[in-house]
Amino acid sequence: MLKDKLNYPEILKQIEQDIQNDFGKGKLADYIPALANINPNQFAIHITTTLGEEYSVGNVDTLFSIQSISKVYTFTLALKQLNDDIWQRVGKEPSGNRFNSLVQLEYENGIPRNPFINAGAIVISDIIFDGLGKTKNKVLQFVRGLSPNQTISFDEEVADSEREFGHRNRAMANLMKSFGNLKNDTNDVLDVYFHQCSIQMTVKDLSRSLIYLANGGKSLSNQEIINYRQAKRINALMLTCGLYDAVGDFAYRVGLPAKSGVGGGIVAIIPNKLVISVWSPELNQAGNSYIGTKALELFTTYASNSIF
Amino acid sequence: MLKDKLNYPEILKQIEQDIQNDFGKGKLADYIPALANINPNQFAIHITTTLGEEYSVGNVDTLFSIQSISKVYTFTLALKQLNDDIWQRVGKEPSGNRFNSLVQLEYENGIPRNPFINAGAIVISDIIFDGLGKTKNKVLQFVRGLSPNQTISFDEEVADSEREFGHRNRAMANLMKSFGNLKNDTNDVLDVYFHQCSIQMTVKDLSRSLIYLANGGKSLSNQEIINYRQAKRINALMLTCGLYDAVGDFAYRVGLPAKSGVGGGIVAIIPNKLVISVWSPELNQAGNSYIGTKALELFTTYASNSIF
Amino acid sequence: MLKDKLNYPEILKQIEQDIQNDFGKGKLADYIPALANINPNQFAIHITTTLGEEYSVGNVDTLFSIQSISKVYTFTLALKQLNDDIWQRVGKEPSGNRFNSLVQLEYENGIPRNPFINAGAIVISDIIFDGLGKTKNKVLQFVRGLSPNQTISFDEEVADSEREFGHRNRAMANLMKSFGNLKNDTNDVLDVYFHQCSIQMTVKDLSRSLIYLANGGKSLSNQEIINYRQAKRINALMLTCGLYDAVGDFAYRVGLPAKSGVGGGIVAIIPNKLVISVWSPELNQAGNSYIGTKALELFTTYASNSIF
Amino acid sequence: MLKDKLNYPEILKQIEQDIQNDFGKGKLADYIPALANINPNQFAIHITTTLGEEYSVGNVDTLFSIQSISKVYTFTLALKQLNDDIWQRVGKEPSGNRFNSLVQLEYENGIPRNPFINAGAIVISDIIFDGLGKTKNKVLQFVRGLSPNQTISFDEEVADSEREFGHRNRAMANLMKSFGNLKNDTNDVLDVYFHQCSIQMTVKDLSRSLIYLANGGKSLSNQEIINYRQAKRINALMLTCGLYDAVGDFAYRVGLPAKSGVGGGIVAIIPNKLVISVWSPELNQAGNSYIGTKALELFTTYASNSIF
Repeated sequence: MLKDKLNYPEILKQIEQDIQNDFGKGKLADYIPALANINPNQFAIHITTTLGEEYSVGNVDTLFSIQSISKVYTFTLALKQLNDDIWQRVGKEPSGNRFNSLVQLEYENGIPRNPFINAGAIVISDIIFDGLGKTKNKVLQFVRGLSPNQTISFDEEVADSEREFGHRNRAMANLMKSFGNLKNDTNDVLDVYFHQCSIQMTVKDLSRSLIYLANGGKSLSNQEIINYRQAKRINALMLTCGLYDAVGDFAYRVGLPAKSGVGGGIVAIIPNKLVISVWSPELNQAGNSYIGTKALELFTTYASNSIF
Repeated sequence: MLKDKLNYPEILKQIEQDIQNDFGKGKLADYIPALANINPNQFAIHITTTLGEEYSVGNVDTLFSIQSISKVYTFTLALKQLNDDIWQRVGKEPSGNRFNSLVQLEYENGIPRNPFINAGAIVISDIIFDGLGKTKNKVLQFVRGLSPNQTISFDEEVADSEREFGHRNRAMANLMKSFGNLKNDTNDVLDVYFHQCSIQMTVKDLSRSLIYLANGGKSLSNQEIINYRQAKRINALMLTCGLYDAVGDFAYRVGLPAKSGVGGGIVAIIPNKLVISVWSPELNQAGNSYIGTKALELFTTYASNSIF
Repeated sequence: MLKDKLNYPEILKQIEQDIQNDFGKGKLADYIPALANINPNQFAIHITTTLGEEYSVGNVDTLFSIQSISKVYTFTLALKQLNDDIWQRVGKEPSGNRFNSLVQLEYENGIPRNPFINAGAIVISDIIFDGLGKTKNKVLQFVRGLSPNQTISFDEEVADSEREFGHRNRAMANLMKSFGNLKNDTNDVLDVYFHQCSIQMTVKDLSRSLIYLANGGKSLSNQEIINYRQAKRINALMLTCGLYDAVGDFAYRVGLPAKSGVGGGIVAIIPNKLVISVWSPELNQAGNSYIGTKALELFTTYASNSIF
Repeated sequence: MLKDKLNYPEILKQIEQDIQNDFGKGKLADYIPALANINPNQFAIHITTTLGEEYSVGNVDTLFSIQSISKVYTFTLALKQLNDDIWQRVGKEPSGNRFNSLVQLEYENGIPRNPFINAGAIVISDIIFDGLGKTKNKVLQFVRGLSPNQTISFDEEVADSEREFGHRNRAMANLMKSFGNLKNDTNDVLDVYFHQCSIQMTVKDLSRSLIYLANGGKSLSNQEIINYRQAKRINALMLTCGLYDAVGDFAYRVGLPAKSGVGGGIVAIIPNKLVISVWSPELNQAGNSYIGTKALELFTTYASNSIF
């Protein structure tokens, strides 16, 4: 029995061993060429604690496409801007459906179920568009400042692909527009959305930039990004809505607030302790990193660290 | 008891009397200003028989926006082009739902239920786009030739409104594109679709142009527009799918193949006998002309002429 | 080209030849053993005209389970009882869905889409239960009187099977009860429903019993079963709702008001002319007789007799 | 600012003051008379810590109907019996819909979304029926032993009402039976289900009986009810699925694993610390206790004790 004996470096090393036979069990995202052609045999974990300690293993310096994880950054910006008024534009309940379904959107009059499904994130882009003006770059600046790492950038090839194959997102944007829940021009809003999805960074950038969610709203340099209550609430929202249609399964197996992206990244929060980011590009059926999910499950088991 | 006694002119006169108290009971279409500002107190009927006789009453020379009735013309063009291969792109079953619902479209992988709902008509526009090239004007030429009336034209103000407020149609087009059921650029296809909806004509133009549906596929000048079998089948399709979500009610009350538009027009077919077109802009809850539906119900009662 | 040359006996003989290679292309109903074990290689057609002439071919004297065709008899009884008040309890629109779906029932507050889907027929059973008292036998007496054939009876083995495997029908009955749209005890109502489905008769009984639908509401002996208007309306309802989720396809191919059952029977009406009943137990994917549908399509082609 | 200053007795007293103006803002459950006639002006909180300390305020000794909270007990029994094999019969994802919807059940072939919606709990009753035989009393014995309180009993009047007005639950049971996901007779299974809903107890009984969820699976007397991992997982499931369609809102406002019932009870878990039970019969729109939810929100605020 490993539990209670290992420190973080030992745990990460152990996890790296445990997952070696799992390459090839998932499938690369294939809806855009830019993601379909990635080398699947990659894996990285990075931990940043609220005390500033850092631990990592694997391809720590490789850039990957954060995709839906970007929804955490834009939601943070929108929450700062509107606080609880944000809930007039988007819900906070799990979707109970495939992550990009139009059905629920139609039944619920253009109000997306939550900010972490595509439709919800598009509304969030529309909201911050109002508050920040030329948003695309404002989002990037926000992410760069949080990390802090001024080299974080869009992958324009991915952004182009998202636009070229983004018919379903365009369908949702137009449907919400028809219900009056999009204020700006759909093409302008989608340009922000497609770009935020294309942000590329490392697991290190990811853990560092989101440490405020584990740290009562404050960055490592003690700057208040959001307040204590807002941080707690984003964590709650990540737990109930952050993993597409595998929210329950992930809570059951891992037991941490988290947000995943189809680029193979997952970031998870242990409140008051740490942020742990994993990346491995092959996905399970729910669209979450196959190895990433397993690695986090092993982590909460070895570290006895789930919130439950 | 009027039945069996009246000839067509007498019947039309009687109907005109019967509906006088029904103005104000329906509601103008209000989704675009161009339709919302029409004088509601208008009414016209025109009959063209397969023998070339014509009968009319009311505002026979007033132009109105045919809207969804245009779907009969474009479907005819597509059927000529693809014959039964058309059913790989669109279904032929009643929708059982609001006429512009995305739900069914999503559950059925981007294949619209039938060619007479908006999504289906957009696919049809895409199909004829392939066959006819610069389609918008080809559709107009087809309609002009059928009538025959070279002055029939688009109402560009209506077409502009359709485009400006067409977010839901744009949502459907993009959703179908995401399923691979739209070959051409969505904006190009929608430009055809929005224009066909804006065609304006009189009840006389309408009856004359569609006489081939009552006449085994042939025009009054004996030109074969489509073959006998195709005409019979378009009639069947109109009966099961031509009246949005009031197909059953209309068959029950009127009992004729028909197609309606939110501009207040309805065209109905008595196979081997005649085409009857009615127009009155106020709509019932299902989006069909209130007075138009009633007028047709009175007509089949007075003339004992339903197909059942 | 056969058309215009053949009389009814010749047409029936021709159809019998044409369908010989189609045995084995459909599938027996398998939801209850009593239907799954039938000899599939059977086929019969019977025509009764409004003039009293009769024509037939195939296994004319074989009893088969009429199943959903019984919904025409019970709907006739309910329409006599309530006339247009019936529409407060059930709709008259095509279902646009699998024939036994609960989804639409839930969205529409326990009001079934039409009387010819299972849920609708269960409501109809509830209605006639109110009017006729001990209904099960009253339904049988009605059918016997129409044919007229006093030997028509329930197949108790089938009725037992229906009850034993009728969980989905029981689910629908309870759902409607929860919405207040079932007045009597669900078990009592379902007992009527399961029995009406089990009625067995021949194609001859079937054509004769429903001649009133082709004859303006009157039986061959000139007795008024329902009035002219009601007969016309049942025909309209059969055309838009009588073939499960293949209403549009059937109208397109055959072009007649009809009602089918999973026992392999289909009855079709040519208003003012005749009733034609076909039976062959193998079903197509929509749950309608494979050979029966083809036979009717051939009939309207050979006889040039569709209503369109 | 109260935070960090108050001990549990002070916090409970403060909450009792804070909620005094909230009586009358919710609505009693009205689907059965037995619940509709309760005195609405009642309120109680009880805390049991893993150290055995107890704190309470309000109507601590009043019995109330635990309703859906009973789903935690039966799920615990089923998990003991089948462990992870249980997930072949029921899902573990939030429902994203009204708590008793049949739609999702139909789309997902009779597999309920999770064990805490009605359909899921009925499957659970079916499962423990297999394992425990005469289940109704076995469930009661389990609850009595956990509390421990041998006077805990069914409220037969409530159980009768549940059965009398349980058409929708009966619809779901039959639908699942039709999909083969119910092994035993539906009436037998529903008898267990209706009885477990009718169990009546006090907030004290409730906190004490479920202390194993805060205590790594062990009762206060250190008996292992379930193992550490199972306890952690039930908590995860309560957080993602325990509050009907207000899961996200509750996580956002309160931030604790919890289960509610339409009798006005809510039990919440702070892992490794305590169980807190609240009761107040008026419900909010989501069907959860209005004052109960507010009281728990105040508690996690005053005690800084959410899991996020």
